[in-house]
Amino acid sequence: MFENVISIKDFKREDIEFILREAEKMEPFASGEKSSSALRGKILGMMFYEPSTRTRLSFETAMKRLGGDVVGFADTGATSAVKGESLADTAMMLSAYSDAIVIRHNLEGVARYISDVVDVPVINAGDGAGQHPTQTLLDLYTMKRFFGRIGSLRVALVGDLKYGRTVHSLAYALAVFGASMSFVSPPVLRMPDNIIHDLRGAGVEVKETERLDDVIDEVDVLYVTRIQKERFPDPEEYSRIRGAYHIDGSTVADRDLIVMHPLPRIDEISPEVDSLPQAMYFRQAFYGVPVRMALLRLLISERGGSENQKIV
Amino acid sequence: MFENVISIKDFKREDIEFILREAEKMEPFASGEKSSSALRGKILGMMFYEPSTRTRLSFETAMKRLGGDVVGFADTGATSAVKGESLADTAMMLSAYSDAIVIRHNLEGVARYISDVVDVPVINAGDGAGQHPTQTLLDLYTMKRFFGRIGSLRVALVGDLKYGRTVHSLAYALAVFGASMSFVSPPVLRMPDNIIHDLRGAGVEVKETERLDDVIDEVDVLYVTRIQKERFPDPEEYSRIRGAYHIDGSTVADRDLIVMHPLPRIDEISPEVDSLPQAMYFRQAFYGVPVRMALLRLLISERGGSENQKIV
Amino acid sequence: MFENVISIKDFKREDIEFILREAEKMEPFASGEKSSSALRGKILGMMFYEPSTRTRLSFETAMKRLGGDVVGFADTGATSAVKGESLADTAMMLSAYSDAIVIRHNLEGVARYISDVVDVPVINAGDGAGQHPTQTLLDLYTMKRFFGRIGSLRVALVGDLKYGRTVHSLAYALAVFGASMSFVSPPVLRMPDNIIHDLRGAGVEVKETERLDDVIDEVDVLYVTRIQKERFPDPEEYSRIRGAYHIDGSTVADRDLIVMHPLPRIDEISPEVDSLPQAMYFRQAFYGVPVRMALLRLLISERGGSENQKIV
Repeated sequence: MFENVISIKDFKREDIEFILREAEKMEPFASGEKSSSALRGKILGMMFYEPSTRTRLSFETAMKRLGGDVVGFADTGATSAVKGESLADTAMMLSAYSDAIVIRHNLEGVARYISDVVDVPVINAGDGAGQHPTQTLLDLYTMKRFFGRIGSLRVALVGDLKYGRTVHSLAYALAVFGASMSFVSPPVLRMPDNIIHDLRGAGVEVKETERLDDVIDEVDVLYVTRIQKERFPDPEEYSRIRGAYHIDGSTVADRDLIVMHPLPRIDEISPEVDSLPQAMYFRQAFYGVPVRMALLRLLISERGGSENQKIV
Repeated sequence: MFENVISIKDFKREDIEFILREAEKMEPFASGEKSSSALRGKILGMMFYEPSTRTRLSFETAMKRLGGDVVGFADTGATSAVKGESLADTAMMLSAYSDAIVIRHNLEGVARYISDVVDVPVINAGDGAGQHPTQTLLDLYTMKRFFGRIGSLRVALVGDLKYGRTVHSLAYALAVFGASMSFVSPPVLRMPDNIIHDLRGAGVEVKETERLDDVIDEVDVLYVTRIQKERFPDPEEYSRIRGAYHIDGSTVADRDLIVMHPLPRIDEISPEVDSLPQAMYFRQAFYGVPVRMALLRLLISERGGSENQKIV
Repeated sequence: MFENVISIKDFKREDIEFILREAEKMEPFASGEKSSSALRGKILGMMFYEPSTRTRLSFETAMKRLGGDVVGFADTGATSAVKGESLADTAMMLSAYSDAIVIRHNLEGVARYISDVVDVPVINAGDGAGQHPTQTLLDLYTMKRFFGRIGSLRVALVGDLKYGRTVHSLAYALAVFGASMSFVSPPVLRMPDNIIHDLRGAGVEVKETERLDDVIDEVDVLYVTRIQKERFPDPEEYSRIRGAYHIDGSTVADRDLIVMHPLPRIDEISPEVDSLPQAMYFRQAFYGVPVRMALLRLLISERGGSENQKIV
């Protein structure tokens, strides 16, 4: 069906729906309620050239919950990169030890390049300003799991819509399902014009606004993202904007919506929201495990059995 | 029976005795003589904010010897902490991926705080000047394993009794069992008054001295700790004291006692002691594995089966 | 048969041949085609004091493909070494948690020293300018696997023959099998005289030259190594030499030989060679896994069963 997971744009709607259905089967195994040896003896190679906790640990957990294991690195200090080895050679080496590779890198396009070099499946865990398809799949899964559908949802993407690969990928994917979208951001962090153009070209209803109040009463999902201080030359401007997009108890009280966030959050959402029924971000983080389990199982177990055998 | 392991003070004598009995069952599995899949498919989340080898590796070994696995981090450089995420959010995230959490942090109270935040069991692997309960349990186990009892033992705690969380926890636990204690330290590193007060209030016989010779002939256990150079403004004072508490072959020769040490040691104990029958510190390090296996099994397997299941 | 793997010189020809035969049985398990639980519940302790990717990851993979697991460290920042613990104590500690130890260190002789200290088998993963026996075994395996024999092969060792522990070990091992050798290097990086003397003393035919062209038509194996810039005070000299030993498509085209390299490579071999049938270096990297699996299984499983047992 698919051999790599590089960009969400590579996936047809039926592919995504199939993955989300498979992910649901994984939940009792993801939570530790049931144990599986589906990937016993299989190895996932991890190439993490950028700091990451959530994505890295959820891939590790996904692999281990399926009875497999991981090898690799989460920083480059202790690796042969210090000896000047090329990225392609490092990937070739790791592919000789593993059944699939997960790569995060700060350069866009690296994951696809590596998938051309090696013979094992490659999963993109974020490549610079490019794609982060497994994040998008778990975002979609969270919506599907809560509402039972994605198609007719009204989703507000809030915060930094200019630099965030997460919201770019998600917007394209929501378009495929026919969800309607509102983009809520300060002018300097607007969703790029080319993406809005693509979405409208695909027949998606898109609304843009600076004010959260304009959309808060007509959305099912508030998808909040972090606004990075570094984007603003003027600290006062940053403070003002941060305040304007801050979500607290009063923002969501009595409203029939869910709050999502790719995490980590800094102070976009008050801790008081955490215990409200609308808070879905920690559940969303958990859903990263069943979604990645589904992908790993589809990519790896297709490539050969893991029947336990005696060495003779 | 218990849901977290935060402070040894939370444990009743019967709880501790139960854990020590469970630990003894683990020994053949801890040594690799037998293998177990008691925690197959289960994940232990590791949050190590302070350098640690022994504690971290023995938890990892304990989990893996039981057929489980670990995810987490042993330093904070490669994690989302660099993005400003709160400790509570990091813990929430890790708890979404795991069946229990082990945390080491340089601030007292952090482990209990985290146990209030997350829904999975939390084990304190040392919180600043506070508690290190699993170290205390393995110390007790070592005594119980060698002498068959703890109650009537005479234990000398030697070295830095002021700053060491290990000796503080241990003193309280020995008191519960009715062991008698001698505190051997330079005046500047005395056992804090409030602890001595607590112990005496609990009816424990406590002796204080600066001189090891005062107690060496009347103890069953010499529990030696590291004296850190940084505690002394005057290097000469440090040298003098280091010499006074140094254990070598002649200290223990022909004496019917065991020498324990939480390790790492610098030069508190001569290497010549290592091969003597009184040297128990390496055995003590090993006992960290069966004790932690017992805890992990009690905390995790109670929470649900690990029966292997086919994903359908 | 053997209790440690410290130096290739400790191994008799029959030992090596036995290991290579065992390695061949491991291949379907090394590739993930079959899964094994031969080392279930067993732990390999990793002490990596020097940066390493390939060696470390292939040991990890080998252990995990056999159903075992690893604990340890790949750098010393997060360990007790910062507290001043001796190497021997760290090894004692790790041996208390594991069934075998793999150590890489920048000092020659460290692996043998550690093997005297601990009670578990020790594998040398490279000790300074000393030995790297598992690399030699996988080099031999690669030749044996391709040619079906080692004895009558003609092997050219190319590049830095002075400082490379890899080529020193390999030369001694090839001598045991009666292979003939050519040493191709610039004068400043010649194979040390004492090694050439040893080899000739053992009756091996040895040829030395500065020019690759002198031997290219009469060898079965081109074993290429990295020439480090740091060896040359004069950058121009370095450039000239690097060019002289560079392997590209035209070097190997229409020649009946294989190109090996311990990796990582910098630019000793053009990427255009990678897709030629003569390129054996990535396959060679993979062979590190079955060879190490064979060693781990021989060293560890001999020491006791891993029959799965219920804890009662």
